[in-house]
Amino acid sequence: MSAPWTPMPPPAFTPADDEWQARVRASFARQRVMTTIGATLGAVTPGEVVVELPFRDDLTQQHGYLHAAIMTAIVDSACGYAALTLMAAGTNVLSVEYKVNFLAPGAGRRFMACGRVVKPGRTLTVTTGDVVAETDAGWKPVVTMLATMMAVPDRDR
Amino acid sequence: MSAPWTPMPPPAFTPADDEWQARVRASFARQRVMTTIGATLGAVTPGEVVVELPFRDDLTQQHGYLHAAIMTAIVDSACGYAALTLMAAGTNVLSVEYKVNFLAPGAGRRFMACGRVVKPGRTLTVTTGDVVAETDAGWKPVVTMLATMMAVPDRDR
Amino acid sequence: MSAPWTPMPPPAFTPADDEWQARVRASFARQRVMTTIGATLGAVTPGEVVVELPFRDDLTQQHGYLHAAIMTAIVDSACGYAALTLMAAGTNVLSVEYKVNFLAPGAGRRFMACGRVVKPGRTLTVTTGDVVAETDAGWKPVVTMLATMMAVPDRDR
Amino acid sequence: MSAPWTPMPPPAFTPADDEWQARVRASFARQRVMTTIGATLGAVTPGEVVVELPFRDDLTQQHGYLHAAIMTAIVDSACGYAALTLMAAGTNVLSVEYKVNFLAPGAGRRFMACGRVVKPGRTLTVTTGDVVAETDAGWKPVVTMLATMMAVPDRDR
Repeated sequence: MSAPWTPMPPPAFTPADDEWQARVRASFARQRVMTTIGATLGAVTPGEVVVELPFRDDLTQQHGYLHAAIMTAIVDSACGYAALTLMAAGTNVLSVEYKVNFLAPGAGRRFMACGRVVKPGRTLTVTTGDVVAETDAGWKPVVTMLATMMAVPDRDR
Repeated sequence: MSAPWTPMPPPAFTPADDEWQARVRASFARQRVMTTIGATLGAVTPGEVVVELPFRDDLTQQHGYLHAAIMTAIVDSACGYAALTLMAAGTNVLSVEYKVNFLAPGAGRRFMACGRVVKPGRTLTVTTGDVVAETDAGWKPVVTMLATMMAVPDRDR
Repeated sequence: MSAPWTPMPPPAFTPADDEWQARVRASFARQRVMTTIGATLGAVTPGEVVVELPFRDDLTQQHGYLHAAIMTAIVDSACGYAALTLMAAGTNVLSVEYKVNFLAPGAGRRFMACGRVVKPGRTLTVTTGDVVAETDAGWKPVVTMLATMMAVPDRDR
Repeated sequence: MSAPWTPMPPPAFTPADDEWQARVRASFARQRVMTTIGATLGAVTPGEVVVELPFRDDLTQQHGYLHAAIMTAIVDSACGYAALTLMAAGTNVLSVEYKVNFLAPGAGRRFMACGRVVKPGRTLTVTTGDVVAETDAGWKPVVTMLATMMAVPDRDR
């Protein structure tokens, strides 16, 4: 039996229905706070979603960096929608809980959050996510998240 | 020896200097994101800080409730400044990490976040916080947080 | 409307059936690891459970204190069984996830963990817990936990 | 500028001194609880440490699976020692806090925990870790952890 820690490609997930991408894009479009802060949805693939956000002065904390909660907002969204790509038709997603570690100040001209499914489930899906900041020296990790997401009936359909 | 689980009043903390309240209010005022979302600082006492936020349509998630990340923003702020009330002169505060559980949807006309120090420390302070929502039926708990805060030199003095 | 942060007595929970105490005690008795480390079940009340553990040299970390994971074990158990007191007949409990902060080294002759329900639910229950250590100077907080528990059908009935 | 989410090899870390491996092995050997549960130290490389544990009947929870807290114990140890590989001479490591998600029951004949450094720091190091279980169908992920570790002076030198 091969050693378990050999690097492996991430698991290839198969969505449960054909509407997975439309479902994610429609739900994201209804999150008014994303428009308010200027976040947009990037790549949406089975089990992985990217959310982008340009830096903005009115979203900063006391030292002039992007506020921790705003970085949390985009990676929470990325993780939630990564989970939703694999959920059944007619469902939406809610955050049960999450934990974030802040690795570096939110300094950069643009931020990208990527959420990925670790373990899909009928009710609960475990996800992980990261935020990277675009700086003059390249992309730099600033936040990492571990989150539990829950499938709920989609009341807005 | 008395049983350890008898309800006790919360610990009475003594700030390290006389500037603790001014330090918190000045730092909060510099958090531009708090103005952007409409959050204001409430009571500031040693080891405990309250942040208030009226509901706003442009801060909602896909079902029309206040977005999880906005509730996280105000309780993160409340916990961080609760920690700062007990830190030394010339310091500011950064969030090392936090975990939040969402107890109910963010439904209500006004939200109050209260952060409290569990264990102060020279470098790291452990805090806990809650968000309650004002509904027709009274105040209802919607979020609970457990967070680690860090004292850093205040570069903005 | 009264201010939400006035100290209130903890909520009084009503168990869903008459077997709640027997269910908890039977499930705890089947956790062989609790016997192995010497932990015993203390008070079991609706929404709150206590687990006790005497200090033992063979459960220590590199500095001779009780290992973090052993303190985690007893407070995880206390939180899980606190959740189980309020679950329906025929269910058992699993830990979905938890977060712990370590407040002080595991120094003391005896440890008590108390788990409490924050928000009960049909599927998921949010709990919080603490471990205190008995020292010559009295009971001292050493660990705090925030945990999500899940009701599952009891296969061992 | 290339897209930030292109898969990259993990960062190559350089230990701060020559004693990193000896320091980890000596500290692990002093953790008496690891001997008590039967855990052994596997590969130790800069920023990554493996801990192994055979299944044992006396470490089980109420359904006969390895107890969550025991899986937590080995991945906490793996994460802590992964952090210690990159810390300065004369230091030891303490867990500040961690969060774990349980992905599947602790079923298997052998468990391996791997801890990895996400972001090293002079005082705080952020780590992530996983536990996999050896089953008839191969290695299966059962636990994932996100943890904050702290460098402390080594009192046992």
